[in-house]
Amino acid sequence: MEMRNLVLVLLVVVAIAAPLSAEEERLEQVNAKTVLVFTPHPDDDLFGAGGTIALLNRNGNKVYVALYTNDDKGSYDPEMTSQRLARIRKAEEEAAEGLLGTPKENLLWMGYDDGMLEYAPQPKLVEEATAIIRRIRPDVLLSIDPGEWYERWHKTDHRMAAFNTIDAVRAAEFWLYFPNQRLQQHLEPYRVPLMFFFYPALQEANYYVNIDSVADLKLEAATKHVSQFEPSIHKYRSDWDPADLARAKEELKQEQPRKDGHYVEPFRRAKGFVQY
Amino acid sequence: MEMRNLVLVLLVVVAIAAPLSAEEERLEQVNAKTVLVFTPHPDDDLFGAGGTIALLNRNGNKVYVALYTNDDKGSYDPEMTSQRLARIRKAEEEAAEGLLGTPKENLLWMGYDDGMLEYAPQPKLVEEATAIIRRIRPDVLLSIDPGEWYERWHKTDHRMAAFNTIDAVRAAEFWLYFPNQRLQQHLEPYRVPLMFFFYPALQEANYYVNIDSVADLKLEAATKHVSQFEPSIHKYRSDWDPADLARAKEELKQEQPRKDGHYVEPFRRAKGFVQY
Amino acid sequence: MEMRNLVLVLLVVVAIAAPLSAEEERLEQVNAKTVLVFTPHPDDDLFGAGGTIALLNRNGNKVYVALYTNDDKGSYDPEMTSQRLARIRKAEEEAAEGLLGTPKENLLWMGYDDGMLEYAPQPKLVEEATAIIRRIRPDVLLSIDPGEWYERWHKTDHRMAAFNTIDAVRAAEFWLYFPNQRLQQHLEPYRVPLMFFFYPALQEANYYVNIDSVADLKLEAATKHVSQFEPSIHKYRSDWDPADLARAKEELKQEQPRKDGHYVEPFRRAKGFVQY
Amino acid sequence: MEMRNLVLVLLVVVAIAAPLSAEEERLEQVNAKTVLVFTPHPDDDLFGAGGTIALLNRNGNKVYVALYTNDDKGSYDPEMTSQRLARIRKAEEEAAEGLLGTPKENLLWMGYDDGMLEYAPQPKLVEEATAIIRRIRPDVLLSIDPGEWYERWHKTDHRMAAFNTIDAVRAAEFWLYFPNQRLQQHLEPYRVPLMFFFYPALQEANYYVNIDSVADLKLEAATKHVSQFEPSIHKYRSDWDPADLARAKEELKQEQPRKDGHYVEPFRRAKGFVQY
Amino acid sequence: MEMRNLVLVLLVVVAIAAPLSAEEERLEQVNAKTVLVFTPHPDDDLFGAGGTIALLNRNGNKVYVALYTNDDKGSYDPEMTSQRLARIRKAEEEAAEGLLGTPKENLLWMGYDDGMLEYAPQPKLVEEATAIIRRIRPDVLLSIDPGEWYERWHKTDHRMAAFNTIDAVRAAEFWLYFPNQRLQQHLEPYRVPLMFFFYPALQEANYYVNIDSVADLKLEAATKHVSQFEPSIHKYRSDWDPADLARAKEELKQEQPRKDGHYVEPFRRAKGFVQY
Amino acid sequence: MEMRNLVLVLLVVVAIAAPLSAEEERLEQVNAKTVLVFTPHPDDDLFGAGGTIALLNRNGNKVYVALYTNDDKGSYDPEMTSQRLARIRKAEEEAAEGLLGTPKENLLWMGYDDGMLEYAPQPKLVEEATAIIRRIRPDVLLSIDPGEWYERWHKTDHRMAAFNTIDAVRAAEFWLYFPNQRLQQHLEPYRVPLMFFFYPALQEANYYVNIDSVADLKLEAATKHVSQFEPSIHKYRSDWDPADLARAKEELKQEQPRKDGHYVEPFRRAKGFVQY
Repeated sequence: MEMRNLVLVLLVVVAIAAPLSAEEERLEQVNAKTVLVFTPHPDDDLFGAGGTIALLNRNGNKVYVALYTNDDKGSYDPEMTSQRLARIRKAEEEAAEGLLGTPKENLLWMGYDDGMLEYAPQPKLVEEATAIIRRIRPDVLLSIDPGEWYERWHKTDHRMAAFNTIDAVRAAEFWLYFPNQRLQQHLEPYRVPLMFFFYPALQEANYYVNIDSVADLKLEAATKHVSQFEPSIHKYRSDWDPADLARAKEELKQEQPRKDGHYVEPFRRAKGFVQY
Repeated sequence: MEMRNLVLVLLVVVAIAAPLSAEEERLEQVNAKTVLVFTPHPDDDLFGAGGTIALLNRNGNKVYVALYTNDDKGSYDPEMTSQRLARIRKAEEEAAEGLLGTPKENLLWMGYDDGMLEYAPQPKLVEEATAIIRRIRPDVLLSIDPGEWYERWHKTDHRMAAFNTIDAVRAAEFWLYFPNQRLQQHLEPYRVPLMFFFYPALQEANYYVNIDSVADLKLEAATKHVSQFEPSIHKYRSDWDPADLARAKEELKQEQPRKDGHYVEPFRRAKGFVQY
Repeated sequence: MEMRNLVLVLLVVVAIAAPLSAEEERLEQVNAKTVLVFTPHPDDDLFGAGGTIALLNRNGNKVYVALYTNDDKGSYDPEMTSQRLARIRKAEEEAAEGLLGTPKENLLWMGYDDGMLEYAPQPKLVEEATAIIRRIRPDVLLSIDPGEWYERWHKTDHRMAAFNTIDAVRAAEFWLYFPNQRLQQHLEPYRVPLMFFFYPALQEANYYVNIDSVADLKLEAATKHVSQFEPSIHKYRSDWDPADLARAKEELKQEQPRKDGHYVEPFRRAKGFVQY
Repeated sequence: MEMRNLVLVLLVVVAIAAPLSAEEERLEQVNAKTVLVFTPHPDDDLFGAGGTIALLNRNGNKVYVALYTNDDKGSYDPEMTSQRLARIRKAEEEAAEGLLGTPKENLLWMGYDDGMLEYAPQPKLVEEATAIIRRIRPDVLLSIDPGEWYERWHKTDHRMAAFNTIDAVRAAEFWLYFPNQRLQQHLEPYRVPLMFFFYPALQEANYYVNIDSVADLKLEAATKHVSQFEPSIHKYRSDWDPADLARAKEELKQEQPRKDGHYVEPFRRAKGFVQY
Repeated sequence: MEMRNLVLVLLVVVAIAAPLSAEEERLEQVNAKTVLVFTPHPDDDLFGAGGTIALLNRNGNKVYVALYTNDDKGSYDPEMTSQRLARIRKAEEEAAEGLLGTPKENLLWMGYDDGMLEYAPQPKLVEEATAIIRRIRPDVLLSIDPGEWYERWHKTDHRMAAFNTIDAVRAAEFWLYFPNQRLQQHLEPYRVPLMFFFYPALQEANYYVNIDSVADLKLEAATKHVSQFEPSIHKYRSDWDPADLARAKEELKQEQPRKDGHYVEPFRRAKGFVQY
Repeated sequence: MEMRNLVLVLLVVVAIAAPLSAEEERLEQVNAKTVLVFTPHPDDDLFGAGGTIALLNRNGNKVYVALYTNDDKGSYDPEMTSQRLARIRKAEEEAAEGLLGTPKENLLWMGYDDGMLEYAPQPKLVEEATAIIRRIRPDVLLSIDPGEWYERWHKTDHRMAAFNTIDAVRAAEFWLYFPNQRLQQHLEPYRVPLMFFFYPALQEANYYVNIDSVADLKLEAATKHVSQFEPSIHKYRSDWDPADLARAKEELKQEQPRKDGHYVEPFRRAKGFVQY
């Protein structure tokens, strides 16, 4: 059904600028629903949407986080090894998401190595994300924005995660994509009704969640990723020196987007795999 | 000959805004020439350029349509199967293009499955499109725009078809690409003189074909793709209920681009595989 | 360390527009340093940054040029063959870079065939570029811009070279990428401090090098690529007819970017694999 | 630990001819253990080891069958489609294995399409089979023989299934193969103690299971695969005409291997991923 | 329908040794039929089955030769290039097969480069060979033996050609393999009734064609491949020095297999994609 | 030049059985020559040909060892990591080969991970081995046997290393394979005159080197691979407990092949990439 692309061509500029209509439920007020977050690494979920995740957990939603990679390469410590770093990163992610209210068993680790997602067998990768969508059947899906901006900095995990997720959203709708999932795993097709993309290009963000009430919590959660901050990223230690911690928090605070005097998380809001 | 890219860098912004010079032949007035359309699915040719195709056929051109995929997945009908849907989609495409004046034998089916073009062996895919160009030797080539906008919505068939076609346009020029085609199939290199990309980003469309005189015909042709509309997309039926048909036509009419009070098809016009 | 992407999201628009701060050393004044240029084909280095390369060589820098492909396809001469064209292109590149002051032994040929870089085994390609960076350890890296604009014209060598280089810049920092390089080849991780991308989109160029003093030299060097100009590109000859040479130079002169009355080479300046 | 290959080289001829030592437990007497069967298609398990499976189920073992493919191509019926055939084949397999005593929930469908296993992404395929082994932790593993003979008839599903399984047996032992399985899925490494390969080359079979007591049951189970017999393979029907059924059973009986007047299933017996 | 493999296992040793039954038509007496020969390089058809091809052409059969590769690498001449060698090899093959009676238009060049068949996209390669079989619909197919012996010397073109052909024989039977061929190219499934494999292992050859009556013709045809003999293979010349020619013929004569005092071509005879 | 395969077919059985002619130089008496050993893992060189290597070093040959993989997975120690194991294995290999007389700088590490060679990009792998052969230009090449027997036990590193090496031997001869090596790296084509395959099938071994004089040295060298023996393979320790060492040596001694009362290393001797 490619006709909708025609619509896309016509409405797309308008759509980007369009305000949310009044009657639409606010993301931060969704409750008792199922939310699925796809993240390339264990921490992009937090940096991109951690405050929103905290709010969604508070509202009684079931939040799942699907993690493409294990983040087993991002250390400057010459004594670090990949198997050890993966173990550290998993524990840090569990601690951070735990603070945001997501239980450990809702973290869905997809098992790819850091920086290698681009080279994964692609139809398989889409098939796996499709199975997750068809099993979780989320009312809302959060993912990294497959928009143009990331493309330019560096292709790899971020870009692949973004594209792969949106490809899976499309495939999940039609049972003839990966029909063995229906036959063998009893996974029925599913149409994702609503999507929010984090890490949007600034000029394309069309939706902002006020996270004032959970800003400190998000900060706290961020610092659970201790291996990713100085000095631990250069010489690993599992805990914080108080001075380092204070400095890290201060920097994070500076970097947290603000809008009209509030801490916000910016998104690009979309419906389905083609936006309009 | 990469030097022309330098020109590209310098002139590109100008080029996009540049009006067609007065002396250039209008696409819709081309006659007795050969036109080759590349389309990812059997219907993008129609939605993107169906009116223009109708005009070109009327003008006595030989129009060929190369179809990358068989569109065998886009149905919500749980009883549908891929082999059956491919058969349906082929018949629908023949009917639709037939209305536009393109004979069935000018449809060049490239044989890929829907949604899987991204995963096809890429040098082979370029090689095949190159062979088509070298054999048909079109005076004008129409294709989906390899521009930035589609990239963002979803990678896959559309993006791959767009890129692959433009890659083949480049390869077709130089016989040292796929030299076995010249040796074994007697296909000489060929330089495509003129290209029009359909589905352009709105802000980059630089060429509009007035299709007022064939708007009804295009509408009629569109509805030959009955499997892609409600209610057939959910529960397949081969014919239309009159009420459904009327509604579908009304919606299609609404979506058809207009400019200055006319129905138009927007394009990005380019010369060769680098534009300037 | 994906946190910096957060910064990226926030600062990116500002960054693009931001003028270089007064205290920053000008690229053209760098001296006694190591410079590494990655180029998709033997001539993109010249067209994109030849003047700058000449200035850097004059300043006593060690300039290395890593060439992804051998350019063995870009001829319309029906008698040409790929092995012969590769030989011609290598000699032309050595002559051209020689004029700019880069010694032949600083040309690092990566051994891929023209137009086939997109289909090279990608992790291997990143691994190879990473090894080059870790061995050369450049103070400044020049490369084709992985920005959005080239994406649209045609994917292939240019795009792949751009993305692959920036991927390698990232991988080079962390020893857990390709750890066998450290173990077996004694290549330590390395962080590239400064990057300039040539062939930028015009609206994104944020840095211009005045090349007035070497404009004629660049012109001279350009014409060493005789196989890429008329009439040699259609019927190869190794030397120039004086009239052809004069015409080629005139055209090249016209195409050379100017800014404020000066010949310039435009760049997008960036620091590290994420820009901010 | 490649040293054992040295042993292999020295002892291999002897090993093949060596009779089982008296004190070794007979496969058909194993009880209250876990048995894992890998089969390329839903029916190779039956034809190769169906009688043995029946005996093992009778002995109170837990038998699991991992099926690489869905067998969605092997029909001459021009009206058949792949999605439909896959559905039929799954039901037939469940019926056949059901008769042998294997419950439906112990069938582990790996989700590949018939005839396409050779082209599956190979490290992924090994990773998946490794995960199955590490989860099921079988005391005995049955699989198609990775021996030389099948190689010659046709490469593809059979060969790939045979090789992939033995590769997975090796990988399963060492946790550094696919370490994310241990970290994320809590799958500990596992060494398969005993393997029997069905479909061995005749001159290499070194183990025979007497299946006299279940020969009729095996025959009955075989005929559950009705779509694979005449006339259903040419024009599908879900049930048997009594005359066809009688003929099919008679042929199957003829083809069932015999040894010393008994119905047997021949195997090549091996220990671990290198045999000695 | 994998059951037949069971038969295979049981009968295979017998089958290899079994004499042809008296009533079977001799290959060399087949007439007015269609014969399809698959060959990895342009000359394996001749060396392996050239005498038989000559006899089959004499008998009024339509003989087609499908050539996987263009043989563009096998020269020691440092001045040779691949495009030139491919041109030479094509002309030599046309001359050689022409002498055997096969018209030039019956040579089906598949377009792969020498030595690279192993790395071709495999499902595509099978798809292409399948299309050839479904279009030619041969009564007899000749191909290089997919048996064990070649495996050991060197994998590559020979092995891949052997396996790919037998895979295509299997796929050709079932329309659900590559169903787009039936839908789009009107190629119906086809079951190859009889196959002869040339280059068999000596101990497995089970069929010998007496080529006494065409032995000189075969010799003459062999020497059309002048580029593959001394001295031309080291320094290309298109013609023969009489002394060189005499020597080459003498050597070829020595190497031609003999049996019971006759020149023969040995084959392994098989029916369908599983032999029994 | 595929004609030689004809010869191969005819002579192969004879060749295998043929005794070395009296006048041929014995491998163990080669001196002042260049020898290149390809090994899949760091220890197969020792187990398969360590005694021979010691003799060759004593004779004043230059011995190089090209190692495909880093052996970073073969440990049962749950605390081991791949980066650490690779480091250990490299040091062990250097110690072991050092004892045999091969200097550390003659070890050519090819940089692949253990168990992943089968999945490496194959044309690249052949290209790399070809470059090594063309650079080293060995008078004698030792490699793992690409014969049939290993195929059956497990495909993977061993099989790939065997096939890849013999493919590279073929490619090395013809400059049109990987012509960029000649153009850019000044590597001229090279024909390997003599090859010995270690780990042959017993019935195909046709050459035995008496290693009595270096048997103890080989034993000593073997025990440098301490991580591969009990107890270190289960719980890593870098040194030996005397009792463990004695036991390991005793077992190794038992496993060392003997012939006519002598310790020997068995080989299959071959000339060039096709044997005859």
